[in-house]
Amino acid sequence: MSDKKYVIIAAGGHGTRMQSEVPKQFLMLAGLPIIVHTIQLFENVWNDAHFIVVLPEGELIRWEKIKKKFLKKNKIQATCGGATRFHSVRNGLKLVKDEGIIAVQDACRPLTSEKLLTKCLEEVIEKKVVIPVVELNDSIREILKDGSRNRNRVKYKAVQTPQCFYASILKNAYRQTFMEAFTDDASVVEAAGYRIHLVDGEPGNFKITTPYDMMLAETIINK
Amino acid sequence: MSDKKYVIIAAGGHGTRMQSEVPKQFLMLAGLPIIVHTIQLFENVWNDAHFIVVLPEGELIRWEKIKKKFLKKNKIQATCGGATRFHSVRNGLKLVKDEGIIAVQDACRPLTSEKLLTKCLEEVIEKKVVIPVVELNDSIREILKDGSRNRNRVKYKAVQTPQCFYASILKNAYRQTFMEAFTDDASVVEAAGYRIHLVDGEPGNFKITTPYDMMLAETIINK
Repeated sequence: MSDKKYVIIAAGGHGTRMQSEVPKQFLMLAGLPIIVHTIQLFENVWNDAHFIVVLPEGELIRWEKIKKKFLKKNKIQATCGGATRFHSVRNGLKLVKDEGIIAVQDACRPLTSEKLLTKCLEEVIEKKVVIPVVELNDSIREILKDGSRNRNRVKYKAVQTPQCFYASILKNAYRQTFMEAFTDDASVVEAAGYRIHLVDGEPGNFKITTPYDMMLAETIINK
Repeated sequence: MSDKKYVIIAAGGHGTRMQSEVPKQFLMLAGLPIIVHTIQLFENVWNDAHFIVVLPEGELIRWEKIKKKFLKKNKIQATCGGATRFHSVRNGLKLVKDEGIIAVQDACRPLTSEKLLTKCLEEVIEKKVVIPVVELNDSIREILKDGSRNRNRVKYKAVQTPQCFYASILKNAYRQTFMEAFTDDASVVEAAGYRIHLVDGEPGNFKITTPYDMMLAETIINK
């Protein structure tokens, strides 16, 4: 394995739950677009990484302006996403030309700690597939055709990013045909037969999805 | 069915994830203890309800001080909880002497909107068992004995409170022997053979569990 490092920033979503015309990854958070915070996290711990940003269709001009204004480095490539996160990451992977390690990060997860990033990026070298998970705060129910049923929440974990992989494994996994259950990279890699290694994530490493999450992120950054 | 109204405030937890010596339901949030905010929600929409507060063992003195200082009404009864939420709510139910409607609310869920409260309290009259649910923001994994597996998050919902029931149904359900999967009231009622009616909850109706949730609640209330 070469030691090339790739960061794929999954920014293909339109963020319909944010009630904003601008996709949420481009909204300003404490003076910087959310996606810029997220990229800077990785620049701080993995400064020799190659960045691949996967954008929503039609957002390339907005991205170029953001990049020019807020990000100095030139080794950020951009490409467009597809109908789902699966299709977006698959498009991003086309720009990965060498062996190495890939970290996939949600663009709207700008509060991952340096400690967690470092842990994931170190553990993946031995474990090959590493993702951070946290316990669920609420009880959960499974929705069935004709109702719903309780599931024991202590037997479930919520999945965060960065999700880290050997490049060869992630590329191989993304050769599969899309399935609805592919809502993160680990689900794709698992379906291809690989074992997923879990590490403890952080309650503060949440994904900005609603205006409430935005408020919380502002509060945390301003402290 | 009589039209008696009961609110059980499930405040039996010690809140180990909050890193505070005071149980989190008693922490100050924008000038009032969290539990006082939560009780006031119900006073605003259901002012003739009978309140039953289930406290952690040994917290009765602290509670009496809070009640005297912040809450005027006398129709709040208090009792002590048990080892789990199930045992706490079961203790609270011993104080329900008549038929009617019971709403069970997490003490640390102080941001339920008046609209959602009203909806739950109206729908339970016809549906008998009503709980609010919201979609999951993160992918989830089920933890197995020797690993974990992806579950399709679109087929799951996170459960909130208030969980509302005919008193007879809830009391009957809580006659069952405790099981580990009883992490909310709906799971207990379901195991007793009743059908659970779901209504759309609110992203803002989160339970305060970590210091991050506390910061977010402060920010929301101060706006």
